[in-house]
Amino acid sequence: MIESEPILVGVEKASEVIPEMRKKVIFHAGPPIAWRQMCGPMKSGITGAAVFEGWAKDAAEADKLIRDGSIKLSPCHEHSCVGSMTGVTSPSMWVFVVQDKKYGSTTYSHLYEGRGATLAFGGMTTETLSRLRWLGEKLGPALRDSLKTVGSISVRNIISEGLQMGDECHNRNVACSLTLFLRISDGLHDLDRRLFTEVREYVTGSRSNFFLTLGMASCKSMSNAASGIRLSTVVTVMSRNGVQFGIRVSGLGEKWFIGPAQKIRGLYFPGYTEADANLDMGDSAITETVGLGGFAMAASPPMLQLVGLTPEDAAHLTVEMDEITTKTHKYFTVANLGFRGTPVGIDIRKVLKTGQLPVINTGISHKEPGIGQIGAGLVNPPMEAFKAAFGEFSDRYL
Amino acid sequence: MIESEPILVGVEKASEVIPEMRKKVIFHAGPPIAWRQMCGPMKSGITGAAVFEGWAKDAAEADKLIRDGSIKLSPCHEHSCVGSMTGVTSPSMWVFVVQDKKYGSTTYSHLYEGRGATLAFGGMTTETLSRLRWLGEKLGPALRDSLKTVGSISVRNIISEGLQMGDECHNRNVACSLTLFLRISDGLHDLDRRLFTEVREYVTGSRSNFFLTLGMASCKSMSNAASGIRLSTVVTVMSRNGVQFGIRVSGLGEKWFIGPAQKIRGLYFPGYTEADANLDMGDSAITETVGLGGFAMAASPPMLQLVGLTPEDAAHLTVEMDEITTKTHKYFTVANLGFRGTPVGIDIRKVLKTGQLPVINTGISHKEPGIGQIGAGLVNPPMEAFKAAFGEFSDRYL
Repeated sequence: MIESEPILVGVEKASEVIPEMRKKVIFHAGPPIAWRQMCGPMKSGITGAAVFEGWAKDAAEADKLIRDGSIKLSPCHEHSCVGSMTGVTSPSMWVFVVQDKKYGSTTYSHLYEGRGATLAFGGMTTETLSRLRWLGEKLGPALRDSLKTVGSISVRNIISEGLQMGDECHNRNVACSLTLFLRISDGLHDLDRRLFTEVREYVTGSRSNFFLTLGMASCKSMSNAASGIRLSTVVTVMSRNGVQFGIRVSGLGEKWFIGPAQKIRGLYFPGYTEADANLDMGDSAITETVGLGGFAMAASPPMLQLVGLTPEDAAHLTVEMDEITTKTHKYFTVANLGFRGTPVGIDIRKVLKTGQLPVINTGISHKEPGIGQIGAGLVNPPMEAFKAAFGEFSDRYL
Repeated sequence: MIESEPILVGVEKASEVIPEMRKKVIFHAGPPIAWRQMCGPMKSGITGAAVFEGWAKDAAEADKLIRDGSIKLSPCHEHSCVGSMTGVTSPSMWVFVVQDKKYGSTTYSHLYEGRGATLAFGGMTTETLSRLRWLGEKLGPALRDSLKTVGSISVRNIISEGLQMGDECHNRNVACSLTLFLRISDGLHDLDRRLFTEVREYVTGSRSNFFLTLGMASCKSMSNAASGIRLSTVVTVMSRNGVQFGIRVSGLGEKWFIGPAQKIRGLYFPGYTEADANLDMGDSAITETVGLGGFAMAASPPMLQLVGLTPEDAAHLTVEMDEITTKTHKYFTVANLGFRGTPVGIDIRKVLKTGQLPVINTGISHKEPGIGQIGAGLVNPPMEAFKAAFGEFSDRYL
């Protein structure tokens, strides 16, 4: 997990690089879940994607096609993919392609969809569709061509630098976005001026999270490096579909261990309260799984205001994760804590022994479709998932 | 000082925008000082500039022309200009042009000269000359043209954002450099590809300080806004020529108050010790004068390793400056201290009353010419300067 070297090697249309995406399929965040059990934002994101693909004229038709099995649904994580919030990813969407230079796995994540009504938060308006078209027709090809010019880019280096500049790489990615722009800019220079400006404006406007999904694909790459190791009790996936929270454990392969998704303790944007909030959702907890996000909270003083913490709280959160992890990171360090590494490698045995749950730093989605982000805060996984995993571990190995 | 709004309005050859620069003159850092009294690096930087201008074939000839008055020397600060370390600025060099949108002053600083043997550290090799030529023939015109395309840029905004990303804007300017690159990139796009790549490589390689001199010119702009106010005991300039430390005080106009330049307490690069170090030098203490640099140390955890401090030391340094300042800054805030403003507006009365001196976070130059930076650390001004200023204040007003 620590020695994995994720590099950005491509930006492509999902259907051209992810085998499963040649079918009529839509990926979603979290562990597998039946269509009828999904939360509102995820359903809305999925029907929106069906409309975007031209498979359905509206949500009602999409719903019918999903029910009769014409459109399949599948978790991102089952295809080396990760997605933000609803995680909705469909074949025409463009994805970052990340390769682990050291251990070889290839992983994917959709391009960041921007603010406002996005499929990631279950939004679906004409603006949502036109932005998705722009991402596929303009930004995706622009990034693909630019990357071909500049060659591959080390994402681990960008994250290392970003941690020194106030990013924790889950909810704050400003410095990483700026660095990515600089690294790819020789290639962007070859775009025509109008397109260059559109790309530059998109990066500027969405710099908080432009890098997020590239970071997530890279975290998935690091997590893959630690997967499938016999007898290992290290957690390799933490992910939520808005109803359930699922984890995977290295020595237990691809099996999901599930518990209920939790309420997020956070700050709400003006006009919203906890009563409006969806439960915890998204594949982005892959950042915490590899020692970033909430585990790197002490590296991100500017994030504190967003989630309502003090610098002392943040330091405490990071240090507290030492109790349940196996190492400190060699490349991801926290200047505020004397340049110590972030805690990494969650051990289910330590979670059960101490009762300490991992801390995840996350956005809050409205529970109704189409409204979007209404706040940000902290959340934990359910202990049930760790108990279930340990039960299986005992049955299989002990 | 707080409400000043510095904006980058131009990048031009010094001789075309600074009236005094139409003459055969070389500017230097700090208060006025006779040629024979200057320290080694400053002398070497100045003779280097004379050779660069084509006024002399070598240092010996330059020395002769300076002694006989053919080449004049003058402090940067006497011409609304500021320069890093030796501060050496000559007519063919290119400068950032900053205007205070609110109070109207115009200020200047040379383009950052990069690493290695630079005139700023008294270096003078063929590499020094060829980089200076590249700055004047390539980078300067490229930035000028790009800025014309994108219009003026708010430097105050860049600094505000940079403070949230680990810059303190004296010795660390990484985030500000990246942000400046993003802001100006629509204009850079119009450059031919080869030049674009050269500029991008220069920004990448010197991102720690590419923004530094633009920041300094902007700080000079803020400081000008607070200058010349009857009865004000606020310090408007702190600057060093490597031999003397000079301050100016708002209510006392342009008069310098002087004391000896001090030794820097710091960490040395491998192979160097305090015995190799020049005394404190440069106009860059203009950053501390307006609430940045050492005054914003708590905002810059990644700087701590360079100067050998802990996060607690850094917080303490910033808070300690409250004792000698009049306000906390409205736009420059420190997330690590709960988003409080940096201390700003050094009051000579408070310095004398408390005995607390301002803290400056600075680079260390080798005392011999041509070697360059050998470390970084903290330094204070001499109390004599504050005493002299207060004496004059009493004579004039009390």
